[in-house]
Amino acid sequence: MATTQPPDPLARELFDEIAGWPIFDPHSHIDARSPAARTFDEVLGYHYYTELCHSAGMPARLAEPEADPRERARNLAGYLDRIDNTVQHSWLVEIARTFHDFEGPIGPSSIDRLCDRADHRGDASAWDREVWDRTGLEAIFLTNDFDDPLEGWDTSKFVPCLRTDDLVLKLHEAKTVERLGRASGVDVVDYATLRAAIGAIFERVKSRGARACAISLPPDFAPRMTTPRRAVTPIRRALHQLDQRPDEHDEVRQVVFWTIAEFCADFKLPFDLMIGPIRGVYPGGVAGGRDLFDRRVSLYDYRALFNHFSGVTFPVSTLSPDAGAELVAYSWIFPNVVPMGHWWYSNIPSYIAADLKARLEAVPKTKQVGYYSDAYKLEFVLPKFNMYRRVLAETLADAIRGRGWSGHQALEVARLVLLENPRAIFAGGR
Amino acid sequence: MATTQPPDPLARELFDEIAGWPIFDPHSHIDARSPAARTFDEVLGYHYYTELCHSAGMPARLAEPEADPRERARNLAGYLDRIDNTVQHSWLVEIARTFHDFEGPIGPSSIDRLCDRADHRGDASAWDREVWDRTGLEAIFLTNDFDDPLEGWDTSKFVPCLRTDDLVLKLHEAKTVERLGRASGVDVVDYATLRAAIGAIFERVKSRGARACAISLPPDFAPRMTTPRRAVTPIRRALHQLDQRPDEHDEVRQVVFWTIAEFCADFKLPFDLMIGPIRGVYPGGVAGGRDLFDRRVSLYDYRALFNHFSGVTFPVSTLSPDAGAELVAYSWIFPNVVPMGHWWYSNIPSYIAADLKARLEAVPKTKQVGYYSDAYKLEFVLPKFNMYRRVLAETLADAIRGRGWSGHQALEVARLVLLENPRAIFAGGR
Amino acid sequence: MATTQPPDPLARELFDEIAGWPIFDPHSHIDARSPAARTFDEVLGYHYYTELCHSAGMPARLAEPEADPRERARNLAGYLDRIDNTVQHSWLVEIARTFHDFEGPIGPSSIDRLCDRADHRGDASAWDREVWDRTGLEAIFLTNDFDDPLEGWDTSKFVPCLRTDDLVLKLHEAKTVERLGRASGVDVVDYATLRAAIGAIFERVKSRGARACAISLPPDFAPRMTTPRRAVTPIRRALHQLDQRPDEHDEVRQVVFWTIAEFCADFKLPFDLMIGPIRGVYPGGVAGGRDLFDRRVSLYDYRALFNHFSGVTFPVSTLSPDAGAELVAYSWIFPNVVPMGHWWYSNIPSYIAADLKARLEAVPKTKQVGYYSDAYKLEFVLPKFNMYRRVLAETLADAIRGRGWSGHQALEVARLVLLENPRAIFAGGR
Repeated sequence: MATTQPPDPLARELFDEIAGWPIFDPHSHIDARSPAARTFDEVLGYHYYTELCHSAGMPARLAEPEADPRERARNLAGYLDRIDNTVQHSWLVEIARTFHDFEGPIGPSSIDRLCDRADHRGDASAWDREVWDRTGLEAIFLTNDFDDPLEGWDTSKFVPCLRTDDLVLKLHEAKTVERLGRASGVDVVDYATLRAAIGAIFERVKSRGARACAISLPPDFAPRMTTPRRAVTPIRRALHQLDQRPDEHDEVRQVVFWTIAEFCADFKLPFDLMIGPIRGVYPGGVAGGRDLFDRRVSLYDYRALFNHFSGVTFPVSTLSPDAGAELVAYSWIFPNVVPMGHWWYSNIPSYIAADLKARLEAVPKTKQVGYYSDAYKLEFVLPKFNMYRRVLAETLADAIRGRGWSGHQALEVARLVLLENPRAIFAGGR
Repeated sequence: MATTQPPDPLARELFDEIAGWPIFDPHSHIDARSPAARTFDEVLGYHYYTELCHSAGMPARLAEPEADPRERARNLAGYLDRIDNTVQHSWLVEIARTFHDFEGPIGPSSIDRLCDRADHRGDASAWDREVWDRTGLEAIFLTNDFDDPLEGWDTSKFVPCLRTDDLVLKLHEAKTVERLGRASGVDVVDYATLRAAIGAIFERVKSRGARACAISLPPDFAPRMTTPRRAVTPIRRALHQLDQRPDEHDEVRQVVFWTIAEFCADFKLPFDLMIGPIRGVYPGGVAGGRDLFDRRVSLYDYRALFNHFSGVTFPVSTLSPDAGAELVAYSWIFPNVVPMGHWWYSNIPSYIAADLKARLEAVPKTKQVGYYSDAYKLEFVLPKFNMYRRVLAETLADAIRGRGWSGHQALEVARLVLLENPRAIFAGGR
Repeated sequence: MATTQPPDPLARELFDEIAGWPIFDPHSHIDARSPAARTFDEVLGYHYYTELCHSAGMPARLAEPEADPRERARNLAGYLDRIDNTVQHSWLVEIARTFHDFEGPIGPSSIDRLCDRADHRGDASAWDREVWDRTGLEAIFLTNDFDDPLEGWDTSKFVPCLRTDDLVLKLHEAKTVERLGRASGVDVVDYATLRAAIGAIFERVKSRGARACAISLPPDFAPRMTTPRRAVTPIRRALHQLDQRPDEHDEVRQVVFWTIAEFCADFKLPFDLMIGPIRGVYPGGVAGGRDLFDRRVSLYDYRALFNHFSGVTFPVSTLSPDAGAELVAYSWIFPNVVPMGHWWYSNIPSYIAADLKARLEAVPKTKQVGYYSDAYKLEFVLPKFNMYRRVLAETLADAIRGRGWSGHQALEVARLVLLENPRAIFAGGR
């Protein structure tokens, strides 16, 4: 049995059907050049395990990225029993079982055996293909820096997505300006050349198969239309790393963000908004486990954006679990706001179940994007999607019993949110 | 079968019992002179359908209020399959089945047949009576402008409720002042005459059967006691449509609101507070489908009001679903705060279930107002109440099984929240 | 049957097992010198009953603390039928049944009989022991003022906990300064002597068995590191009851709070943070029933504290039910943040169930503190813990069915959150 199945027979039947479908995964952090894990340390090194083990008492240094991979895996294995109640731990068990034919507890006495079995440094490409096939992947979206060459892989399977955080939030860093100049071939010295450079980036990534643009935004960011004229000086000061007042810094973020939204409109790319994280709230944490949020956030802050860019589709993910109901309301009203998946701190079954039930009750079925894996390694796509598909099957079984839906109707909704809607929304403007 | 019934046998039994009771509906937008729909377009024109179809891709112009009714119905019918997962769509199916003996999908190929069958322009009064009877209505509250003559109908069945949004939020508009003068017979030129005019309005509506006062308030409104003295100048400027600073505009809102609360005390009328909506967040939307909210709202902002007017009952509805738990706490502490129904964006089964369960666990049973329809046409009262009664029956069945309640005890609670409490609270100070 | 049992057989089996365990109660307001109720009025006088009866219509004066106890019990009994739907009322029924062998409704016609039966003024010590034994208590934490002598009882059973609200929030009151001087033997005139006095308090309470420090904080409090230097003048003004600007008052709160956290670090005491209440929101309410909250609160405001004091364990309770998901995220990331119980307005089964499910899915099992009673009289410990244990059993039964857990695994998690984690966290730094 590849995964824990829903205990309810009707839900299990729906799950079995859905689990046979291909997976279209519209957001991940997969490296197309090294999609599957070469060693089990790459699985255990996922921030969920390092941060949860650290939260449970493991010193952060035991999971340092610089550590010897096998040692680090052993270090983590010593703390896994403290987190074996978490759903994240259940992904690990499912990976070991599905991909490495490994049953039983993962701990100090078994970790070496598991690591040996999961060592695919010698057959990397074959292993990539095998994990892809066993997962039933149809396509998976990447997270690409604006200067990623986007070359060397099949972009119909590993689909590029332009990540724009650096441009919006880090334009005042010399490295960003330098990278932008190099990637665009434009000498970026003011707003005009900045705009030209961003346009060149869009031109390039679109031509190389990008089908979405994405950004993660802190809770204090409230997009507003600003005029390039007002931003002229702040932009120039940012580009030259001169000191900026907070309001100037915000002006830069605003104008760059708005400019990117304009290019999303021009290039007909959906713009994924991932709203909420604050970086480095816990600087002493493990790599990837330092970010949190402030729950006092509202989509009302995004009204100017949603109104102005009525032609751009905004798949929205919110980080704070208690913000889920607001996303239901905004997706119910704005044609271009699409509820997308269940993200990070909201990506556990009880929050998924609450959000999913409300979405299925109040948002048109043709505009919901069910799920994405957010994975760094291919092995995680299957257990994460299975977690979602389980909750989906249970929710649909309840709809069959409580809302009078037919089985056919339930599966049609599942097919829309898992396959047809994501395919349509992320078609790349073609 | 008139409606989808709860799958659980015990819940079904409770539902069957409750569904036989009369309906006391303490808040709606029914037009007493034309309560039931004359054509099916009046049903399909409900903002839930126009906004959801628009959200699902229908251009707003296809549902314009000016359009030919039959054409608009056809336009909407072409998009209904995209929203047939929503609970709002299920009300539509229930209306077609219950009132028009129409089974099967409502879509382009069936809409004309359904419209023909639902055409009651020729027998309007008889149809009004029939819908009233089949619904089992006992009384339904209206939403009356302050200058509504409140004449021409039986106000013990169609009960007037004085809506005060215009007075509080639009006093700076010439039209409001002019209407107020005409309705009150007072020449409104300053605070003293304004107060006299509002008093005259209360006198009139009370004498014509009004049993409640109501207002919807934006999230940034925090009532506070203000002195008419401080408000003298802002009020005069508002009454004469002179420019106002934001703080002056707020001063006007405050003093008018507080004055109305004083009259609610004097006239012994409950004051329905509908907290949260922001109007016109999406100006490009369909009529009635442009309002949303900012979830960062708290009842703490209403403490001065609740404390000062300890003799006024405030039935409170909150718009943001995540604000429901705070309403439980404020109703648990303040004798004059009453949790009222489940409103608009919070009016879907999963949010109702969560709020209802908590209310039944922590708020005295004698002060809960279970539900109101918020309907614009009588046909919607039954399916909306049935949705609520289904959730109520399931929640009570869980209380019987899990909290040791008897069936009798469960039905007594149902009777209180559906009938006895609303009757007592909205008795009109008699 | 001592309590309502879960209807689900698997949950009932788990509950029966768990209900046989001892209770370790890490937070209460028990008076160690008079732990059990001497009269039933002391049970009915619990603020939950006075405030709910008042909320349901009972005038506050009928429950005044000064009233004759038997009269007050009769007064309350006359309103209990209005709140018999609440979970708080079910605690009362369970107390009557378990400790006073009393079945049937508690109301005007039975209250005298119940009061007679529950009168233990004549055998107080024996009754204290009997309630302790029937409850199966292992240890219960108290809430001790900083000048409590902590003498006259077995502190391994009634464990002292230093409550620091007065020091942080009321240092500007002459009484506080006078009490502090007397309790510490230090003449408190400036920051240096204040620090010395607080140090002396910690020294004393630790030596007398205190195993935790605790504070409840209003939603507008955002701890930050401040320098004693900056606080010199505000502290001196507070100590001498001179007028203070709001920013000076905040400076005082900040530096005293931070100083206390430093002593928690030095003395290796966990620091319970109880976040959210605002005192006296409803001044006209009954004693103990005047406090509420503003739901716009975030743990993000506590980041400086959690980062700076990485060696201090912070068991955190949040008051606003909708803030529960944020606590899950912060406990998942910060090693020193521990989700603690379900507090006050969040302490009802539906909120407990939602929070508990999420914690069991995403927070390491070894750092969760399941529950505390918050009780004022020993009789409440059992029904409140039973309420929690019922929800826990149901949640674990779902995990057995839905997540593939074994019964053994489920009970191990229960044992951790109920016994082993609290024992370890509140070991008193020994």
